[in-house]
Amino acid sequence: MQPIEKLESEKIVAKNQIALQTVMNKLQLINKELSVREGRILIHNISGRIKEPNSIKVKLRKKGCEENYETALEVINDIIGARAVCYYMDDLYLVADVLNTHKDMEIIKIKNYMEHPKKTGYRSLHLIVKLMIPYGGKQEMVKVEIQLRTFAMDYWAVLDHQLRYKKENTDNDSEKIEKELMDYADSLESIDKKMMKLRNKIAKI
Amino acid sequence: MQPIEKLESEKIVAKNQIALQTVMNKLQLINKELSVREGRILIHNISGRIKEPNSIKVKLRKKGCEENYETALEVINDIIGARAVCYYMDDLYLVADVLNTHKDMEIIKIKNYMEHPKKTGYRSLHLIVKLMIPYGGKQEMVKVEIQLRTFAMDYWAVLDHQLRYKKENTDNDSEKIEKELMDYADSLESIDKKMMKLRNKIAKI
Amino acid sequence: MQPIEKLESEKIVAKNQIALQTVMNKLQLINKELSVREGRILIHNISGRIKEPNSIKVKLRKKGCEENYETALEVINDIIGARAVCYYMDDLYLVADVLNTHKDMEIIKIKNYMEHPKKTGYRSLHLIVKLMIPYGGKQEMVKVEIQLRTFAMDYWAVLDHQLRYKKENTDNDSEKIEKELMDYADSLESIDKKMMKLRNKIAKI
Amino acid sequence: MQPIEKLESEKIVAKNQIALQTVMNKLQLINKELSVREGRILIHNISGRIKEPNSIKVKLRKKGCEENYETALEVINDIIGARAVCYYMDDLYLVADVLNTHKDMEIIKIKNYMEHPKKTGYRSLHLIVKLMIPYGGKQEMVKVEIQLRTFAMDYWAVLDHQLRYKKENTDNDSEKIEKELMDYADSLESIDKKMMKLRNKIAKI
Repeated sequence: MQPIEKLESEKIVAKNQIALQTVMNKLQLINKELSVREGRILIHNISGRIKEPNSIKVKLRKKGCEENYETALEVINDIIGARAVCYYMDDLYLVADVLNTHKDMEIIKIKNYMEHPKKTGYRSLHLIVKLMIPYGGKQEMVKVEIQLRTFAMDYWAVLDHQLRYKKENTDNDSEKIEKELMDYADSLESIDKKMMKLRNKIAKI
Repeated sequence: MQPIEKLESEKIVAKNQIALQTVMNKLQLINKELSVREGRILIHNISGRIKEPNSIKVKLRKKGCEENYETALEVINDIIGARAVCYYMDDLYLVADVLNTHKDMEIIKIKNYMEHPKKTGYRSLHLIVKLMIPYGGKQEMVKVEIQLRTFAMDYWAVLDHQLRYKKENTDNDSEKIEKELMDYADSLESIDKKMMKLRNKIAKI
Repeated sequence: MQPIEKLESEKIVAKNQIALQTVMNKLQLINKELSVREGRILIHNISGRIKEPNSIKVKLRKKGCEENYETALEVINDIIGARAVCYYMDDLYLVADVLNTHKDMEIIKIKNYMEHPKKTGYRSLHLIVKLMIPYGGKQEMVKVEIQLRTFAMDYWAVLDHQLRYKKENTDNDSEKIEKELMDYADSLESIDKKMMKLRNKIAKI
Repeated sequence: MQPIEKLESEKIVAKNQIALQTVMNKLQLINKELSVREGRILIHNISGRIKEPNSIKVKLRKKGCEENYETALEVINDIIGARAVCYYMDDLYLVADVLNTHKDMEIIKIKNYMEHPKKTGYRSLHLIVKLMIPYGGKQEMVKVEIQLRTFAMDYWAVLDHQLRYKKENTDNDSEKIEKELMDYADSLESIDKKMMKLRNKIAKI
């Protein structure tokens, strides 16, 4: 077993950055391809981040796992994370379908928080993929989490994240706040669905 | 009176691009300043565009105005348009307040579509400003429209724009669709307000 | 045979943009990989462009070829062109070597204008590659020209290009100007070589 | 006197970033303005950096100054540094002239290392400016160093910087290497001048 600090070695950092950039590039090029095919832009914006070593340690501890390099790679799916924010709910599947045809990538797990939201109200489509990148003259496999969201899901998730972070040290009213946030997630989903239906109705006219 | 084609002259195009870039830079720097002051990021993203000469002509005709250069500059406020999308409703005023302290700019008109939404449901805070830019060794005055929106307002406006554009040539069901879109705008405003209240509640805890 | 205008169809334009972006991304990621390996940055900047349909027609005519889509694709190597500017002459080979290990790409031709400069004095290492890109659910092959240059070669080529363009319509002094530019190319090569030797000398100390 | 660590306070860091971005924006907009006026692009690329606190301390010690905040601001001109790389030698003066017409900026010192190169061979035109930026509702004065260079000067300076850094810990051959680098700087200046003359000759034809 190698120490968890290996995650901060120059070689691993570079490899992770290359993997992240490769996935973000893929999403950008898929947007171009689908825009031509569908006659409208599907992805509103793309972002990405590499998880801080500290957050990785915290997550390992929470899960009751050992803090070493191999366990981190195995247990934590979102060390490298990319996000694409789409306009409509069905866009998420269109993007996922194209990703599925890419030969240098394999989708190894799908977490459909759009159909089955988290208890908090969180909605998103998560794809855990294994990506092949050329590095050091060889092909290397790297795990990446791709989050696909609608604009409305992203609006909720971004504000929820900010608010959760702020209230971290309080417990008063905590349940009430949780309940409120969940309600807003439901309301937003309802609008999201109606917007999609409206788009379909208009397309048919 | 000069012909409307002057808008497409190399010199005017360059001046407009310089003005747009200057305002977008301002918004970016204001975001940095306010982030330090407020301890949280206020602006989620900034964008901008220069109105196509064709759209300017169409707009002049709609307003029953003559199609010449001077009238275009006088009548059309959004030839140059920048947009900042914020997290919360009160952020719009915070950004506007800082813009108001900038010496190279004067706010000449405020259209508060947040407090007084358009009939369609459109919400946003529009500032029409006169910006002084150094150009050709002199100070030149250029008019720019700055649109400040929350994430939720932007979500609605972006989808509304897409859908309106698609249904342009239909008239069937038109009223029903308008009504639907307006309802979603109202629902989103209601969520927007609650999110802001929630933030304030958490900040106080 | 399909008409040359096919090059301007939305699908082909999108495919070309995807191919160009893919190669530019590759160069960026190779720079990251090599920086870690060599302990210094190798690529100073990366750029790219898609050849204008008009320039393609002009080039076909010059070569005495028919103006149709298939001939354009076959005869013209730089419809899609990417450029990486490196610090030292041997960096060009290091970058080319890594490109050669990429499985989604095949180098089909090398034009070594570094060892065998053009008559004008032009120096660069050109790789004509066939790139596989996922598009429309399939793998498509696209031809791309990759130009690798040192800073000094780029300096000469950029100024040469500007000056040649400006003097296009003159013929007076033309030969003298050509001769001058060629001399500067030689002087720059001599400096380029000495800078590389100096780097090697310092590395050994 | 305030401690030197103040340079790392969030407020000062943000102010410095705003100042740097403002100057880089200025250079970009000047490039646009001059391109229209001169009918050719003058600036090839723009970059910038904020000096690391450690480098500031080292520089203060070298100069035999006290290490505190006020002395740093007074003595060190390039805490904030922006650089524009131009095509031809006379472009440097054209850019400086436009900067001189900007009302929110004052050039307080010119170091003309183009006419009077450093002993090492370093050439560049340095402008030390006082820039007025809106910050915290007020106008604040910030000192910025703007380096204007030709492509050839930049080529030399970038490689010289790399090589000097690498040979830092050696002293053998040091003088010989210095002499070599100086010679290359002279050769490059000679090419630079001829390129400018050639451009003028062509323009006149």
